[in-house]
Amino acid sequence: MGKGITSRSEDYSQWYNDLVIKADLAENSAVRGCMVIKPYGYGIWERMQAILDKRFKETGHSNAYFPLFIPKSFFSKEASHVEGFATECAVVTHYRLKNDGTGNIIVDETAKLEEELIVRPTSETIIWNTYRGWIESYRDLPILVNQWANVVRWEMRTRLFLRTAEFLWQEGHTAHATEKEAIEEAERMLDVYAKFAEKILAVPVIRGRKTENERFAGALDTFCIEALMQDGKALQAGTSHFLGQNFAKAFDVKFTSKEGKLEHVWATSWGVSTRLMGALIMAHSDDQGLVLPPKLAPIQVVIVPIFKTQEEKLALDNYVGQLTSELQALNISVKYDDRDTQRPGFKFAEWELKGVPLRIAIGSRDLTNGTVEIARRDTQTKQTIEQVGLALKINSLLDEIQDNIYQKALNYRDNHITEVNSYEEFKQVLEEKGGFISCHWDGTVETEKRVKEETKATIRCIPLDAKMEDGQCIFTGKPSNKRVLFAKAY
Amino acid sequence: MGKGITSRSEDYSQWYNDLVIKADLAENSAVRGCMVIKPYGYGIWERMQAILDKRFKETGHSNAYFPLFIPKSFFSKEASHVEGFATECAVVTHYRLKNDGTGNIIVDETAKLEEELIVRPTSETIIWNTYRGWIESYRDLPILVNQWANVVRWEMRTRLFLRTAEFLWQEGHTAHATEKEAIEEAERMLDVYAKFAEKILAVPVIRGRKTENERFAGALDTFCIEALMQDGKALQAGTSHFLGQNFAKAFDVKFTSKEGKLEHVWATSWGVSTRLMGALIMAHSDDQGLVLPPKLAPIQVVIVPIFKTQEEKLALDNYVGQLTSELQALNISVKYDDRDTQRPGFKFAEWELKGVPLRIAIGSRDLTNGTVEIARRDTQTKQTIEQVGLALKINSLLDEIQDNIYQKALNYRDNHITEVNSYEEFKQVLEEKGGFISCHWDGTVETEKRVKEETKATIRCIPLDAKMEDGQCIFTGKPSNKRVLFAKAY
Repeated sequence: MGKGITSRSEDYSQWYNDLVIKADLAENSAVRGCMVIKPYGYGIWERMQAILDKRFKETGHSNAYFPLFIPKSFFSKEASHVEGFATECAVVTHYRLKNDGTGNIIVDETAKLEEELIVRPTSETIIWNTYRGWIESYRDLPILVNQWANVVRWEMRTRLFLRTAEFLWQEGHTAHATEKEAIEEAERMLDVYAKFAEKILAVPVIRGRKTENERFAGALDTFCIEALMQDGKALQAGTSHFLGQNFAKAFDVKFTSKEGKLEHVWATSWGVSTRLMGALIMAHSDDQGLVLPPKLAPIQVVIVPIFKTQEEKLALDNYVGQLTSELQALNISVKYDDRDTQRPGFKFAEWELKGVPLRIAIGSRDLTNGTVEIARRDTQTKQTIEQVGLALKINSLLDEIQDNIYQKALNYRDNHITEVNSYEEFKQVLEEKGGFISCHWDGTVETEKRVKEETKATIRCIPLDAKMEDGQCIFTGKPSNKRVLFAKAY
Repeated sequence: MGKGITSRSEDYSQWYNDLVIKADLAENSAVRGCMVIKPYGYGIWERMQAILDKRFKETGHSNAYFPLFIPKSFFSKEASHVEGFATECAVVTHYRLKNDGTGNIIVDETAKLEEELIVRPTSETIIWNTYRGWIESYRDLPILVNQWANVVRWEMRTRLFLRTAEFLWQEGHTAHATEKEAIEEAERMLDVYAKFAEKILAVPVIRGRKTENERFAGALDTFCIEALMQDGKALQAGTSHFLGQNFAKAFDVKFTSKEGKLEHVWATSWGVSTRLMGALIMAHSDDQGLVLPPKLAPIQVVIVPIFKTQEEKLALDNYVGQLTSELQALNISVKYDDRDTQRPGFKFAEWELKGVPLRIAIGSRDLTNGTVEIARRDTQTKQTIEQVGLALKINSLLDEIQDNIYQKALNYRDNHITEVNSYEEFKQVLEEKGGFISCHWDGTVETEKRVKEETKATIRCIPLDAKMEDGQCIFTGKPSNKRVLFAKAY
């Protein structure tokens, strides 16, 4: 497909890898499972961060920072938590290197830590150990804190952005006086994530609740947003956990209530990560490369001048300078690609690959005619339009593109939620069509595990808006009162 | 001194620790040497980040992200670099924990890494190993990349913000086709740091060059900005390194020049860290607590209502609502502290402790009189002023405070640069007055080390604006052609 990108139909997985590399988003590093996020990819992540951070602050949260390392003993305090993370922990055991005398650098065995330190895979334990010192009375609550950080989970099979040993994320950790408040907080943040995914990433999501089996290690309830990729596989795009009093009990965090009683504190945690980059890429992009929704694109409009003489170039520079000011006044980010080392065709392909939503090409004849050529990345259509009122036209075109990208993803997603009522049908849809399969399930972990073993499909969520409906589990025939969504997932 | 802060005259070091804790900036964590940065402290760091990040981008840099871990073998490739960092490295040796069968969580010895991973103390090695893949021709240069990250240096004696095992920083890593360009870059970023320190932190700095002995491990030249704290000790607030071709050679990074020749790439790196928080605190604060320059204060103006009845409160709310809108329209951040759980006097002390530049108190009588009471944190003066045009008055008052804080620090600093011409004088000034001592030095590492051993003073820098002047080294009497600055330092 040109540019060295495998097509989606040929090999979806290879297409993804090619795209991430060729569009300069990220690459594998020399450290197993760890990625380098390249400037163009990081620019998109920075946009995500800025928008999310603003929403966290609007909902009353502040940022703080907690240690990278967690003493092993902290880890062991919440039983299900340690069980969930123990097998993927990077462990620091020493704090010094030395020269072995022959010029080799080796670990200094005399500098062994008394207690090993775990590189945080998530920060509940170190944070709740800290909160013990911050909380005495109901007046100290709620604590609404978020942290932007790197975390490490030693995954065996990694893929750029989707599953890496180190990744970047934010983790909110809140403390509340009542169960009700904590549940409301977990729901509120799920809503923040869902709106961000839909309005900004242009990725439609289903809001749901995880089954017991898929819950976060240490949570009483895990809420999630689930997105669908173009290959029919689901991707969990964000989670928000109601932790009950589990961590407060493990770390002895109590407060004196208004009524003067000593009680354990209620908790939530919630996070999204650089995995969102994977969701963004796989939800919209095509065989020509990345397709970015305008609200996330670091460059929203690229302008390519087409000229032969230096005189022509100067006239174009002049016009583009004006247009750029007008666009910037509308908060539109513009790049003028006037490199003289590359031809226009090369530039077109490059910006297409990088997903810039709108491309403007302008030559001397356009200047004479008062026109420009505009190409939309999402529809890959071109049109020649008049320069009069161009900045405003572009502004509304960007909105149109944002909507169109979302609608396209929404149509795909909605066409890929299939209701089935038998296990035969279930397997057939899973094989032939993919997507979410809506069906009845008997509510047991055992059935869930059996279905997973046989088909690789997991219960992505119990949708929050699931209707009460009598039915029979497709696997066991036992009674069920609502449908859940199964899918193969990233 | 009330509020539980030791006074500076009593014990400067204890004053600092008390202030950091009491003003809710940071605290020690359960992990040796690692700090928790609390929301109020992190808010100040976020302001620093936002302003610096903007300046980095204005000077052509992009952000990216490189792995937390560095393979041990990379570390060994640049000889002086590994020598500089080997003794303070956190080393990851295993990637899994397990239950030992009796309920104890232990390191799984079967999950030992083939090659140990170092938690980055700085990222030159992993980044230059990556740049090898990014650079082929002069067209790929310059690379102007910055990273915001956490780093770990296993310091034995730690202090909140000033020296912690883990700290937050930014590290710029640039690659250039020529030596000249790289040196210009290193100088440009020193200038960015110096202006940031002076205009934003209100901390005057001396721009200089480190001596060979104090240079960054792997650099050919280290530029620095040096600030002076209120106890007469110096603090290195930022460094910018010209790395020559050292890392390009160690990691075999070459490019084809315009002339078609294969050459090694030239490098710089530059960084500032959460240490700046320490500089900020120690440069301006007093026995009542933190003093924040308005340009960094998360809250610039706090408004405290004084009332008895709910009716009075409502009238005040109404006025404050209006004033707040006017202030926010001028980009001034305001907090209305109308908590009914605390008395005004408590609130005054609290915001004083937290360094809010301006406090407005307003009661019912003020409403009648059309006045408010304004208290400046920097001068601890109060005045009653008219409400007419209040927002604009506050705006210019904030500028005045910013200037005043800087001038005060500048006066102190300038009064603490003492020229001496003998070693006796040197020792006397060091003991009795402190500050920077400007004197002649023979240029040898040996003399520098001897003076350090005898007095604990180090050469902070050779000022960039040092005048050529014939003189004799205060220690050896050997000839010298310019003065350097010695000081005891953090």
